Amino acid sequence: MCGIIGISGVPNAARLAYLGLYALQHRGQESAGIVTIDEDGVARSHIGMGRVSETFDDENLEKLVGDVAVGHTRYSTTGSTVLANAQPYLVNYRGGPLSVAHNGNLTNAAEIKHELVNRGSLFTSSADSEVLVHLIARSEALAPEQQIRSALERLEGAYSLVIGVGRSIYAVVDGRGFRPLFYGRVGKGIAVASETCALDLLGATDITEIQPGEFLHFLDGNASQLRPLSPRPITRCVFELVYFSRPDSTVFGESVDRVRRELGRRLAREHPAPSGDVVFSVPDSSNAMALGFADEAGIKLEHGLIRNHYVGRTFIHPSQAVRVAKVKIKFNPVRDVIEGQSVVVVDDSLVRGTTSKGLVRMIRAAGAREVHLRLASPPITGPCLYGIDTTNADELIASTHSQEEIRQFLGVDSLGYLSLDAMVEAAGSSQFCHACFSGHYPTDEDPEQLVLLRHADPVTATHS
Amino acid sequence: MCGIIGISGVPNAARLAYLGLYALQHRGQESAGIVTIDEDGVARSHIGMGRVSETFDDENLEKLVGDVAVGHTRYSTTGSTVLANAQPYLVNYRGGPLSVAHNGNLTNAAEIKHELVNRGSLFTSSADSEVLVHLIARSEALAPEQQIRSALERLEGAYSLVIGVGRSIYAVVDGRGFRPLFYGRVGKGIAVASETCALDLLGATDITEIQPGEFLHFLDGNASQLRPLSPRPITRCVFELVYFSRPDSTVFGESVDRVRRELGRRLAREHPAPSGDVVFSVPDSSNAMALGFADEAGIKLEHGLIRNHYVGRTFIHPSQAVRVAKVKIKFNPVRDVIEGQSVVVVDDSLVRGTTSKGLVRMIRAAGAREVHLRLASPPITGPCLYGIDTTNADELIASTHSQEEIRQFLGVDSLGYLSLDAMVEAAGSSQFCHACFSGHYPTDEDPEQLVLLRHADPVTATHS
Amino acid sequence: MCGIIGISGVPNAARLAYLGLYALQHRGQESAGIVTIDEDGVARSHIGMGRVSETFDDENLEKLVGDVAVGHTRYSTTGSTVLANAQPYLVNYRGGPLSVAHNGNLTNAAEIKHELVNRGSLFTSSADSEVLVHLIARSEALAPEQQIRSALERLEGAYSLVIGVGRSIYAVVDGRGFRPLFYGRVGKGIAVASETCALDLLGATDITEIQPGEFLHFLDGNASQLRPLSPRPITRCVFELVYFSRPDSTVFGESVDRVRRELGRRLAREHPAPSGDVVFSVPDSSNAMALGFADEAGIKLEHGLIRNHYVGRTFIHPSQAVRVAKVKIKFNPVRDVIEGQSVVVVDDSLVRGTTSKGLVRMIRAAGAREVHLRLASPPITGPCLYGIDTTNADELIASTHSQEEIRQFLGVDSLGYLSLDAMVEAAGSSQFCHACFSGHYPTDEDPEQLVLLRHADPVTATHS
Amino acid sequence: MCGIIGISGVPNAARLAYLGLYALQHRGQESAGIVTIDEDGVARSHIGMGRVSETFDDENLEKLVGDVAVGHTRYSTTGSTVLANAQPYLVNYRGGPLSVAHNGNLTNAAEIKHELVNRGSLFTSSADSEVLVHLIARSEALAPEQQIRSALERLEGAYSLVIGVGRSIYAVVDGRGFRPLFYGRVGKGIAVASETCALDLLGATDITEIQPGEFLHFLDGNASQLRPLSPRPITRCVFELVYFSRPDSTVFGESVDRVRRELGRRLAREHPAPSGDVVFSVPDSSNAMALGFADEAGIKLEHGLIRNHYVGRTFIHPSQAVRVAKVKIKFNPVRDVIEGQSVVVVDDSLVRGTTSKGLVRMIRAAGAREVHLRLASPPITGPCLYGIDTTNADELIASTHSQEEIRQFLGVDSLGYLSLDAMVEAAGSSQFCHACFSGHYPTDEDPEQLVLLRHADPVTATHS
Repeated sequence: MCGIIGISGVPNAARLAYLGLYALQHRGQESAGIVTIDEDGVARSHIGMGRVSETFDDENLEKLVGDVAVGHTRYSTTGSTVLANAQPYLVNYRGGPLSVAHNGNLTNAAEIKHELVNRGSLFTSSADSEVLVHLIARSEALAPEQQIRSALERLEGAYSLVIGVGRSIYAVVDGRGFRPLFYGRVGKGIAVASETCALDLLGATDITEIQPGEFLHFLDGNASQLRPLSPRPITRCVFELVYFSRPDSTVFGESVDRVRRELGRRLAREHPAPSGDVVFSVPDSSNAMALGFADEAGIKLEHGLIRNHYVGRTFIHPSQAVRVAKVKIKFNPVRDVIEGQSVVVVDDSLVRGTTSKGLVRMIRAAGAREVHLRLASPPITGPCLYGIDTTNADELIASTHSQEEIRQFLGVDSLGYLSLDAMVEAAGSSQFCHACFSGHYPTDEDPEQLVLLRHADPVTATHS
Repeated sequence: MCGIIGISGVPNAARLAYLGLYALQHRGQESAGIVTIDEDGVARSHIGMGRVSETFDDENLEKLVGDVAVGHTRYSTTGSTVLANAQPYLVNYRGGPLSVAHNGNLTNAAEIKHELVNRGSLFTSSADSEVLVHLIARSEALAPEQQIRSALERLEGAYSLVIGVGRSIYAVVDGRGFRPLFYGRVGKGIAVASETCALDLLGATDITEIQPGEFLHFLDGNASQLRPLSPRPITRCVFELVYFSRPDSTVFGESVDRVRRELGRRLAREHPAPSGDVVFSVPDSSNAMALGFADEAGIKLEHGLIRNHYVGRTFIHPSQAVRVAKVKIKFNPVRDVIEGQSVVVVDDSLVRGTTSKGLVRMIRAAGAREVHLRLASPPITGPCLYGIDTTNADELIASTHSQEEIRQFLGVDSLGYLSLDAMVEAAGSSQFCHACFSGHYPTDEDPEQLVLLRHADPVTATHS
Repeated sequence: MCGIIGISGVPNAARLAYLGLYALQHRGQESAGIVTIDEDGVARSHIGMGRVSETFDDENLEKLVGDVAVGHTRYSTTGSTVLANAQPYLVNYRGGPLSVAHNGNLTNAAEIKHELVNRGSLFTSSADSEVLVHLIARSEALAPEQQIRSALERLEGAYSLVIGVGRSIYAVVDGRGFRPLFYGRVGKGIAVASETCALDLLGATDITEIQPGEFLHFLDGNASQLRPLSPRPITRCVFELVYFSRPDSTVFGESVDRVRRELGRRLAREHPAPSGDVVFSVPDSSNAMALGFADEAGIKLEHGLIRNHYVGRTFIHPSQAVRVAKVKIKFNPVRDVIEGQSVVVVDDSLVRGTTSKGLVRMIRAAGAREVHLRLASPPITGPCLYGIDTTNADELIASTHSQEEIRQFLGVDSLGYLSLDAMVEAAGSSQFCHACFSGHYPTDEDPEQLVLLRHADPVTATHS
Repeated sequence: MCGIIGISGVPNAARLAYLGLYALQHRGQESAGIVTIDEDGVARSHIGMGRVSETFDDENLEKLVGDVAVGHTRYSTTGSTVLANAQPYLVNYRGGPLSVAHNGNLTNAAEIKHELVNRGSLFTSSADSEVLVHLIARSEALAPEQQIRSALERLEGAYSLVIGVGRSIYAVVDGRGFRPLFYGRVGKGIAVASETCALDLLGATDITEIQPGEFLHFLDGNASQLRPLSPRPITRCVFELVYFSRPDSTVFGESVDRVRRELGRRLAREHPAPSGDVVFSVPDSSNAMALGFADEAGIKLEHGLIRNHYVGRTFIHPSQAVRVAKVKIKFNPVRDVIEGQSVVVVDDSLVRGTTSKGLVRMIRAAGAREVHLRLASPPITGPCLYGIDTTNADELIASTHSQEEIRQFLGVDSLGYLSLDAMVEAAGSSQFCHACFSGHYPTDEDPEQLVLLRHADPVTATHS
């Protein structure tokens, strides 16, 4: 998963891109980068590993001159965690500086890469997105619009893209519409972003969602529609609404917060917990779901777990001598809420099950009489091929265990998963991709094969 | 405000101190430090500016050998933001290595410092706590217990202390009991910490609150009571319960979360908002209060504001050209919850009023029909002299404006402050210091005078 | 100018490459990099801006696993001072990992780059060397040897190269032999390096100079000759002997120290300074020349200038208020040697003249009665196109001023330049390029045009 | 050994102190620090581990406001290599900010420290110099001049000091005059420095050496003589002239370069090497000595060893597999000079003998027929107690081995040490301390005892 940003026709575009990336930080903390283009068409970039706040400072933002910007924050999907894979890509090609920020995953990248390498293309990263850059550069079309279009026609999979060519910005979403993308007006210019929360922060007006297959061109703050991509069946990623997007965003036409409350309500209807004294969330991802559940079930909402927001990526794990589970660093139970109670814990989803098992043990140690776990999505049985870095199927607990086995593994008194139909109904009126839950992959690839390919990378480069 | 930790008789004491400081990070992010003592009585320390996660890594923790540790995380109260003021202090005195971690503020420090300087003592920091170290070193008593006691007898103000002398750890709370301190058993040793949430994380058992005036000695994991300090009227800091402590802690004998829900309930009784459609908190500090308010008032609880937890100290403010209020970086409204509604916003307290004003404007921009602000504490009219870094009285909005003026300044339809009596009743059975609300300072100093003294510091030292 | 290293068939090849780069540090301090290949053909690289000692530490060297290595230290010639231009290049192409370390400058790079870009090649750097990588990758030959050969056939200019393909190392010098390259045996393996001083440090035996046009293949420590490149007139860079190489190296079959002493001797014959009381060098570059001069002229050698070796790239220049010339930070006169004397200062060459002017003023301030400047090379009148970053012709003092004008500008009593013939004779039996002195460029390009092209770079990328 | 600087009455004093420390870098590379005092008497300091260039940048120099400065660069003598030991010391005492920069070593520091600790003084470092700060602060005298004088009266050993009190600077040299100190006029102000090379760099005029026991006061650029310290027999450190000072300095009234040439000449007279074909130095410390030797002996001077100046403190030693002696990284022989020759190597002194042994082996490997080592000072048989960090007597090769044993250990054909009388005569007209050569320690302490005391340090503190 990644967050992407585009700015056209706004002075100090790098500052806006920086703010926008801040608002999209939840979509990726592995690397952050901004490319700017100045009035003479000269491109500058700054990219670094880590969060936006670690990568940018006043000094390097100041050097990113220009009123056009492309920004990216990365959560690794394919490719190693190294600087070479950080985006936006920036190259010079015959059309001038070309920069690309990609959210999604290209399912036929390995195949096309193989062909391009045999024709002499040099790849500097192990990320799938680099294939697109080469296809644009090798296109025989003359106009950038045609070069991009011909490149996209060869690609399968998920892509929401912000592409800079010279002083132009192009924004496009694949025909299936897996990942969100929006644009709005900022002053006399335009901003493009993965989620509305970033456009809100920039004070954007006239915020519009870019529809599946839609292809837009922005130059000096003017927007124009290009001919759409060939239509495909629409398959919005339902997990964007369940987990990934920020609750204050509107995604696929729906308020994320509202969808999550509705998921909680439907969960309460499908799997009430009549013996429960108190309901609480695993903060902050399932807060809205717990609210909906409590409301619908008529059980009191409390804050049973406190999250330590200071726990970052650099946490040093204690030696074994100190027998503290990793989960305790991040969450602490509120004994006064839990002790002697039958508690209903609402979470958004269950991947490996190890964190939840730790949480349940901790809640029991705080004195819970009964623990009922309610999940606002169905069992995850397969990997995502379209941009979320889930693991191999055999690490997904629901792909190898029955619900009763999972219940015993977690040590809960009861376990309830929301049904696929209920999740999709709550998610709104779009058509959705729910491959990781249902196994119905909208594209033709073999999931196992693709996941394997992701980890083959013969070059490791570091920089200092 | 600061967080302090002590460990006695547990192998790899630095690792436990590190974990404990992580749990106390909300009490101070300016600096962090750990001193350890090994089996031969040799002391080692590592101290740095910034958060615990920025200061410590595997390499420097590995070098902190020993089964005894003293830890500190600082939120500046007196003294500049420089390394020289970071704690724990570590010096060699005639009793061996002496280390001090202090939470609180000594109100007669300036006076004693003046006297000590005239007698030839050298001060390397501008913090009040250094006075204590000099008093111990200059005491003519022979036993460390007596040296500490004679030093404390000269001091006024707030102090919860962890002091290491040789391989011994001493823990003591001033007779008024302004700041919390706890200890518990960890394996065959002892851990001391400012809040129970840190002891929970260490897996401590038999957790006991150190009472006002109580003086304890820990050696090789054994605890012994020393003669208590001279008794004083008890004046627990009510703001620990209202704002400072973590909700999963138990402080002054009360569950912080429970007290906060009760504050919310009493607020709903004193200042109901009958026209309100929806209640929400300013996350995360007033979550429990909003829960109590919604429950008592019978108004629906929602999540109307989303907090961006990635905003750290290093945020670079956008140029004026980008007209985004600072508050928008940290909070974003959920339009779906707010639009067209009469909203009740519950917050814990109001200091300067500038952040709240920004929030209100943002909530109105998201479409709120009416905004009712409810504060779970009385107007703050004076500075804290006992360890919380509030500013001069003239920056406190309630010290210079009437409630109606504040309501107009904030731009809310109605404004309700919880009464002093209701706050104190909700806070439990202790006696409290509520000087910042009531002006009744339990010690004799002139508040204005003391606040001025804090900012006089003729030496600035930096290191690289 | 750059230093390059190759290692084949020696365990911990990165450690040897690191040592070798240390010995070549005088050839470039802008960036340093090492690529290694392990027994499975997996490539790893680490590259950083700055000196070898700043870029590498025990941790990153430890990760560079393998018995094959390619190393590079860069002194910018073309392209900006940014990480993207640091070498070795490392890409995956259809033959596996391909790494390139280049010393020299390709004079037709811009032209070929233009053509490659039009055919869809993507350039990530602004350095000329990247063209070679693309030519190899696009070659239609099957064997790496043929791919490299066909790429080199297209290139003009100066190149001494170490190229890694899979586990093989190729070493080659252009047919004109502008830049030096050597190899020798280290244990059971082979080391390649720009100068013999690096091979000395590795304890290499059987050290052999790679002749112009010679093309070698090393695999698992075995060396084999490949068919040489098409022959060209030999034009060794005379400046390698005059200035660039380390005096303890043997270059182009000659001891650099011996050549420099001979330059000094011939200078004394052509331009004796009969009134001189004392001779000294500008340390350390002209030490050997001053020795030869003093010996031949029969004037006493002294140390008249002391060099401060601690002055690095990070020196902060004092404000104008402090009127200390930059040259005084680096050199200080020995008054006892200079006062009242007629001094002969021997230097290797004169570029802009500003440093020498500062030195002369300083020597006069130390009491010199007369100052005679002797230069062990002719006036520099044109830019170097083959790898030395001299500036535009109009900044070279000798391209726009007569010798008498220069003498007056420098403020010396007499000025003597060694003649072209004498320099070339002292430099040994090779044929030489002396284009910067004589204007006879061995290749066909227009010098002015090429220097301009170097500074056109539409993309600037930084990393953190 | 350390370098110290004082500035009085010059705008941007920190910039001058920075320049001065650059020139004194050879006297200590462990830490560097500057304290400034502004017009209101406010002190600021910046101190860091490492070289001047690593510690200071434009940003931190900019913050050091004021026209008064005290600077220090440290080469550890007593105390650990930690920030707490870096100077200048800066404390607030009753006279205002007090800063101290000390060059030398106090031989009765441990004794006085013990007494002060018992009286309640707190020591934050393990360095001997801190004792002085406490003595000044505890002095009962009223005037700073008297406080300093009474403190110095209690101290034994070597001290050249720059002391800042308020806006005044005091400079003083102990009565025996072990270490050099100078002052001169810079603009309308005054600069004080350990060596004249630093004053030269600042463009100082009227440079005057501070004599043993001399005590000076500088305020706002005006100098005044204070009553001198009680007279002691003068014992200048002869090693300052032999090794430590920079050759372009004038120290103890003598040109260092001239003294060194004379040492070389006398060495040639005492120990000629009639069979020698060529003479060379171990660069750069014995350059002047080799010049004098060659001149006197009538043997040709050459450059037989090249020094790699890029070798810094961060060098990573190769694994054992790479059998390269550490000495080869730093020096490389010039084969052309050495091969087949009988060489005379002139060095300044011999401490442990391990480096010389490596050098000799390297010179033989480069083909030398004979190697004759000549040392421009007598055998070192005892530790220095006055500021040079030599090691225990049993590590000094000459304290445990005869000259013939040393000759065999080093593997040289002949070995000649300059006699004590000749060294002292060459060193000029002062009286000298030559305790490390002769065993005649001018103070009363037991050398063995003192060296042991230096390594006892019960506290280790690091910072980040």
